Amino acid sequence: MLAKHGVSIGDSIMVVSEDGEMSGVLMPRYESANEDYIVIKLKSGYNTGIQINKIKSLTKLLEDKSALTAEIPKIIENKSLPRIGLISTGGTIASKIDYRTGGVHAALSASELNASVPELASHASIDPEVLLSEYSENLKPEHWTMMAKKIVEKANSGKYHGIVVSHGTDTMHYTAAALSFALQGLQIPVILVGAQRSSDRPSSDAALNLIGATVFAAKSEYAGVFVAMHSDTSDDLIACHVGTRVRKNHASRRDAFESIDVMPVALVRNNTVEMQKSEFKLANRSNGNLIAKPMFDDRVVLLKYHPGFDPKLIEHAVKAGYRAIILEGTGLGHVSKDCFPALKNAVDSDIMVCMTSQCIWGRVRMTVYDTGRDLLEIGVVPLSDMISETATVKAMWALANSDDYKKIMQENLANEISACIPI
Amino acid sequence: MLAKHGVSIGDSIMVVSEDGEMSGVLMPRYESANEDYIVIKLKSGYNTGIQINKIKSLTKLLEDKSALTAEIPKIIENKSLPRIGLISTGGTIASKIDYRTGGVHAALSASELNASVPELASHASIDPEVLLSEYSENLKPEHWTMMAKKIVEKANSGKYHGIVVSHGTDTMHYTAAALSFALQGLQIPVILVGAQRSSDRPSSDAALNLIGATVFAAKSEYAGVFVAMHSDTSDDLIACHVGTRVRKNHASRRDAFESIDVMPVALVRNNTVEMQKSEFKLANRSNGNLIAKPMFDDRVVLLKYHPGFDPKLIEHAVKAGYRAIILEGTGLGHVSKDCFPALKNAVDSDIMVCMTSQCIWGRVRMTVYDTGRDLLEIGVVPLSDMISETATVKAMWALANSDDYKKIMQENLANEISACIPI
Repeated sequence: MLAKHGVSIGDSIMVVSEDGEMSGVLMPRYESANEDYIVIKLKSGYNTGIQINKIKSLTKLLEDKSALTAEIPKIIENKSLPRIGLISTGGTIASKIDYRTGGVHAALSASELNASVPELASHASIDPEVLLSEYSENLKPEHWTMMAKKIVEKANSGKYHGIVVSHGTDTMHYTAAALSFALQGLQIPVILVGAQRSSDRPSSDAALNLIGATVFAAKSEYAGVFVAMHSDTSDDLIACHVGTRVRKNHASRRDAFESIDVMPVALVRNNTVEMQKSEFKLANRSNGNLIAKPMFDDRVVLLKYHPGFDPKLIEHAVKAGYRAIILEGTGLGHVSKDCFPALKNAVDSDIMVCMTSQCIWGRVRMTVYDTGRDLLEIGVVPLSDMISETATVKAMWALANSDDYKKIMQENLANEISACIPI
Repeated sequence: MLAKHGVSIGDSIMVVSEDGEMSGVLMPRYESANEDYIVIKLKSGYNTGIQINKIKSLTKLLEDKSALTAEIPKIIENKSLPRIGLISTGGTIASKIDYRTGGVHAALSASELNASVPELASHASIDPEVLLSEYSENLKPEHWTMMAKKIVEKANSGKYHGIVVSHGTDTMHYTAAALSFALQGLQIPVILVGAQRSSDRPSSDAALNLIGATVFAAKSEYAGVFVAMHSDTSDDLIACHVGTRVRKNHASRRDAFESIDVMPVALVRNNTVEMQKSEFKLANRSNGNLIAKPMFDDRVVLLKYHPGFDPKLIEHAVKAGYRAIILEGTGLGHVSKDCFPALKNAVDSDIMVCMTSQCIWGRVRMTVYDTGRDLLEIGVVPLSDMISETATVKAMWALANSDDYKKIMQENLANEISACIPI
């Protein structure tokens, strides 16, 4: 069809389809992608798929491409700056669109990075490495293990002042939690960073996020796992969140990531780190060898309660061989009394059942109402203000690393639980 | 044990247990409640359970109870005020603590209501009715049906200017969504209202919420289903949310309920309704008979995706006879490619699979990335910015009311979907 219309990948085209009129750059498809669609990159920078059998007309537009084929500038590395390891795992931030081919490719040679974000070279000497190239919705616990091992290798080498991990945003907060548990005792800061909008969009957050993460990696007095992303929709402020306390709260906004129930630990403004008043116990930078605990057991099921929730789902979890159930209960940590027999059976079958709140903010308090007290009596483990995403990850980690996992779930290991304000 | 210490229900006591020292009023236990705990009401108003075998000492405190046994003032009803039906379903707001007995009882005779909230009588003539008395985590779709039928009966009687439904907060937003679909074409406003803190706590939100809901029921120019709760932590502003667009976002704060992706439709301040600039199509008050569609089919399963999510859960949903799966995907509406075969099988088995975003804010946009396009091709139904709680309820409603439920899920019936901003 494309040949018929005389267009090829990278051309600017206008498409009239049953769904409306759109113009943009014709993109190549990934091998795995659906053959019934063509993909164009709109002026806004978003890719969109158009169903081929709905296309009414397709016209090639003339466009000056000279601005898009500029040479990559030469890299000038300053070896006196802090050395930062950059591990790329995929996602929007690790890619840039090549308008000559329309293709997405990893922008991760040092020279290419500096070409996309020239400011980086004035803050750090970046040592990049491609570990993975995957949309983050496809990442699994085995990838967390891979990342943890790679970070330990780099941290224990003593060569790096900090490590930046570029990551797709969809599951970046899950990975941050996983690394927080796997890498307790980390000597340097590890900062996960992503982009909500690709670097070729006018509104892209990729450059500022990467600069913010790098500045924090270079200048933070604290070690540990953090997430750095836009703090608001202005383009001058990056928030650094504790890895276990952050959540992606918006599907598309640049300030999608928010600390839950706590403040971010730091802001980065004008390349300066502003530490925030924090309730956290943060570790200082240190020396020595870190022994990671990078293994996870994914026999964990997350169940969100709602009216009409079928208690048989809990029975299924028992039969299917899961070792832990993380409940997202209502309010202070409740599910209907219809679920009690199935939960009791789960606990009696030696399955750990933990309670979090689907409210997201606030904490479960299971002694306030009968429902909570009954659930405690059944043996449900209350997880205070740990968010359900972190709880799910922590359960996978705890099951793989200790027989005393129920106790571990209730202990504050990586700032995932805040001190309870007395009621 | 209580007899041994010379204390009885309603006494002020101080308890020293292994978990610390606490004092408050000794409460009666519900019949269903756990026998290993005593329950005391703390000064903060919260109930808390104390494990009996951890108690080291228990002392009766002297206290002046005269302030707590005041006579209920006589009700002076003003029949010229708008007549409001008050339906009680349970929850914190529908109860008040009787300090003489320590017992919780429904405060729902008109006189008792006016005694607790005397300001009510100056805004409306309240006609109360107890429909249910249940913690809201125990409410099910059959209770939504019961409530819908009762509301239709009252609305069609022509006697009421508006209806206030008092409800436990844990699942109030689910009920609000359910009534929004069941009662399309409602002639008057129906306002759900709850309390995060019981009416005997100094910080209780019960009175202001009830007044706000009543004022809105009396004065709103619009009909439909709304939720009225504290707008912030100050005690002078009530926000009225559209029933399909509201979520309980905090486990304990008084301003826990928030409109998602939209503004509340109105604020109530100083007993005045301030309509907000709104994108909603709101219906005006009307006359005539409403024919409700109050039935729900609960063969719907809500699955929240996370790294390590087991595609076998989807397979289970197919085998277990659910008719719809609501996915809470990541970001713009994604799950891992590992789930594709199971999802395809679900769709091929005539199970409706819908996509929402676990980000909560923002909307699914499934044409932006390969993952989304592949899911669309499999037949997953994208639900735009409908929140997952509303989507779950709507699926239960759509399955029970039409064979064309897939189409219905994508149509905006009760302001559950906002117009998509072009990308």
